[in-house]
Amino acid sequence: MKHLLSIADLGAEGIEEVLRVSDSFVEVSERAIPKVPTLRGKTVVSLFYEESTRTRLSFETAARRLSADVMNFSVGTSSVKKGESLKDTVETIEAMGIDAIVVRHSSAGVPWQLADWVDASVINAGDGWHEHPTQALLDCYTIRQRRGSLDGLRIAIVGDIKHSRVARSDVLAFTALGADVTLVAPPTLLPPSLEGWPVEVSHDFDGVLPKVDVVYLLRMQQERQTEALLPSLREYTARYGLTTRRAHLLQDDALVMHPGPMNRGVEIAAEVADLPSALITKQVANGVAVRMAVLFLLLGSGGDLG
Amino acid sequence: MKHLLSIADLGAEGIEEVLRVSDSFVEVSERAIPKVPTLRGKTVVSLFYEESTRTRLSFETAARRLSADVMNFSVGTSSVKKGESLKDTVETIEAMGIDAIVVRHSSAGVPWQLADWVDASVINAGDGWHEHPTQALLDCYTIRQRRGSLDGLRIAIVGDIKHSRVARSDVLAFTALGADVTLVAPPTLLPPSLEGWPVEVSHDFDGVLPKVDVVYLLRMQQERQTEALLPSLREYTARYGLTTRRAHLLQDDALVMHPGPMNRGVEIAAEVADLPSALITKQVANGVAVRMAVLFLLLGSGGDLG
Amino acid sequence: MKHLLSIADLGAEGIEEVLRVSDSFVEVSERAIPKVPTLRGKTVVSLFYEESTRTRLSFETAARRLSADVMNFSVGTSSVKKGESLKDTVETIEAMGIDAIVVRHSSAGVPWQLADWVDASVINAGDGWHEHPTQALLDCYTIRQRRGSLDGLRIAIVGDIKHSRVARSDVLAFTALGADVTLVAPPTLLPPSLEGWPVEVSHDFDGVLPKVDVVYLLRMQQERQTEALLPSLREYTARYGLTTRRAHLLQDDALVMHPGPMNRGVEIAAEVADLPSALITKQVANGVAVRMAVLFLLLGSGGDLG
Repeated sequence: MKHLLSIADLGAEGIEEVLRVSDSFVEVSERAIPKVPTLRGKTVVSLFYEESTRTRLSFETAARRLSADVMNFSVGTSSVKKGESLKDTVETIEAMGIDAIVVRHSSAGVPWQLADWVDASVINAGDGWHEHPTQALLDCYTIRQRRGSLDGLRIAIVGDIKHSRVARSDVLAFTALGADVTLVAPPTLLPPSLEGWPVEVSHDFDGVLPKVDVVYLLRMQQERQTEALLPSLREYTARYGLTTRRAHLLQDDALVMHPGPMNRGVEIAAEVADLPSALITKQVANGVAVRMAVLFLLLGSGGDLG
Repeated sequence: MKHLLSIADLGAEGIEEVLRVSDSFVEVSERAIPKVPTLRGKTVVSLFYEESTRTRLSFETAARRLSADVMNFSVGTSSVKKGESLKDTVETIEAMGIDAIVVRHSSAGVPWQLADWVDASVINAGDGWHEHPTQALLDCYTIRQRRGSLDGLRIAIVGDIKHSRVARSDVLAFTALGADVTLVAPPTLLPPSLEGWPVEVSHDFDGVLPKVDVVYLLRMQQERQTEALLPSLREYTARYGLTTRRAHLLQDDALVMHPGPMNRGVEIAAEVADLPSALITKQVANGVAVRMAVLFLLLGSGGDLG
Repeated sequence: MKHLLSIADLGAEGIEEVLRVSDSFVEVSERAIPKVPTLRGKTVVSLFYEESTRTRLSFETAARRLSADVMNFSVGTSSVKKGESLKDTVETIEAMGIDAIVVRHSSAGVPWQLADWVDASVINAGDGWHEHPTQALLDCYTIRQRRGSLDGLRIAIVGDIKHSRVARSDVLAFTALGADVTLVAPPTLLPPSLEGWPVEVSHDFDGVLPKVDVVYLLRMQQERQTEALLPSLREYTARYGLTTRRAHLLQDDALVMHPGPMNRGVEIAAEVADLPSALITKQVANGVAVRMAVLFLLLGSGGDLG
């Protein structure tokens, strides 16, 4: 494993390996001093062309717990503004001596380009509407932690599927591990074609809820309204929001998940987000351990887990 | 001691304890390698909803000297912008595994809310016009360093009392340690009511100066002019600025203090800020040691001072 | 050596010493764990009044590899915005306990002012159009690495000499080490007077190319066009760009250098930047080692190279 570009590349076996290694790092995270020397002397750079404090901090926390050095190449203030090409930026960063690049970019495929250009490991932290593999890995880990396995579970992914890299990576990961996935969304927020997606589609959220083990809510972007893909946020909530009423349709042990940041009152009712079955902060916590596992597998697997 | 929210909560005994522990860290700061392993493996996050490079750097330097890891949750570029609630932001940060949150916010009371929501220690680095407890602690430390004690000292706090969290925390801390405080300000820059404040008030700066041991100048914000609370900055300086002429009214051993950043030529003459009796950079230097003491008392008091 | 303010101050002997020490740090950079404890407990602050992610990251990487702590005083969000004077900003930073300040400022001479005010070491990371000494040092190191020595080499520096601190520092350093320098530029982009500069000047790029060992291209700022110093970028490229055709005029072993970030297609053709003779990323890589050498010589020369 040299890069982590997509769940598609990783496959079921790769996913299972990351989850297995993550167990060790969840254990490390619970120690009084949650730090191991595994990646001492390695440098990880975060290169975010779209800002995302939570994903960036999660990766940086993971790197620091492995004793790696962290550099933050903040694009807003960098020479990228001066018209430097992506290739020159990345080659410059690499020349300073780095071991991994964590990249987020608004264009699908950028992480593959980078992997072509540099010797360092490349981790896709989100490329356009395409993939966000570490999010899917931490989602799998969180479900497995509660249910032992994803095999045979029924999972609904609800919301703006069309513009969601989280949805794409989650569909691939959940189905690779044996879950049945149903997409629930208004037709305007589904991709133009779902050919080849191993999923069912429903527009009847109320009908789906009693049958699922996990309901995974996507963040609704305000701008979908102005793009006329939604009549209004209120109408979206009425039909696709996990309201308190709808939460009662769920089975007792069903899990509620969300990649954050949440729009409370839009895709999820404030009270529902605070239920014990809602795993949102658990996802964040597991995210650090899963990203430690990814960094370890890419950069340090010759070493010792500490 | 779990949180540091206010001087009001801390009381005389709490203040004395912080000052006592600060002595050790002033000593650490003077070593060739000013670093102790006390908080190794702990993570401190700075969450500043109002930017303040100097306060943030002081806390981050303190944390690093104790070998803690530091995360900077920069609000300008974070999901807060995407409309995430304060509670969700803080729970997300905590889920990544942190031990203390240093928070600055324009609304009074926010640190108390945070302390309610999270298990981590919360340190108030300034909430609205309310309190800024570590500033008061470092001010007490600096006076004590020069005078042995605050007991019986006469201290004038001069300037925009109304909008100053520094003034509020300093009044509480100085009087708790036995000093007599006089507020010197134009009526428009005093709080609407001073009931319960253990202070005297004067509008006659020249009359106050010969009687005090310490004159503490507050920063004058340019915007007070446009808000019509001041006729002009020039007139403010004429009546309430520590000009060179006025500095001569002070006793020989009187101290001049300011929380920074200074407006030289407005609340303090350039030459006065450079007098040996002006302790402005001493306050900054002590600030790091005092914040080390606070972090140690909150997070590491089971350990060893190193 | 207390400060690094200019190549002019450093002289041939000083330059040679930095290059010699840099050899050790190039070796350190090639280790599996490219880190030495040399500056443990020292704090280096970067104070950039002009943003430059690449130079700042290079210094911060160098400091971290020496185990120093790094503070980033980001001017955009600091009290400088609130009208604080440069002197007060710097004295505040120093009061927090720092050992070196790496400063970039749009005004020539600022690093000298700082060196007057503080006890910490000051490193000039670019002052106005004046000097950028570490760039010149890494350029010398890179040429010496390929050619053994600069003595007797013929070097052309091409482009906007007038507004270039890189050109000024490079001319001083290259000639101090015995190279012959020719400046190639349109008359509008040369300084008003070149009296005392130990250089030749040419407007005939094609005539110069076959005779030089190194061609050093400067970045062309888009704004030179709007300032009417250039008819157009296209015309600039036609006369002074290192096009593919012109690159063929070079001797086989001639070197191509650029301080970055490049405008591919303006001062350098995209294909030329990718030739084996183009040392742009080598310059970046050596930059980290050379800056380690500078920090070591200023802060740690009593110690052990590790």
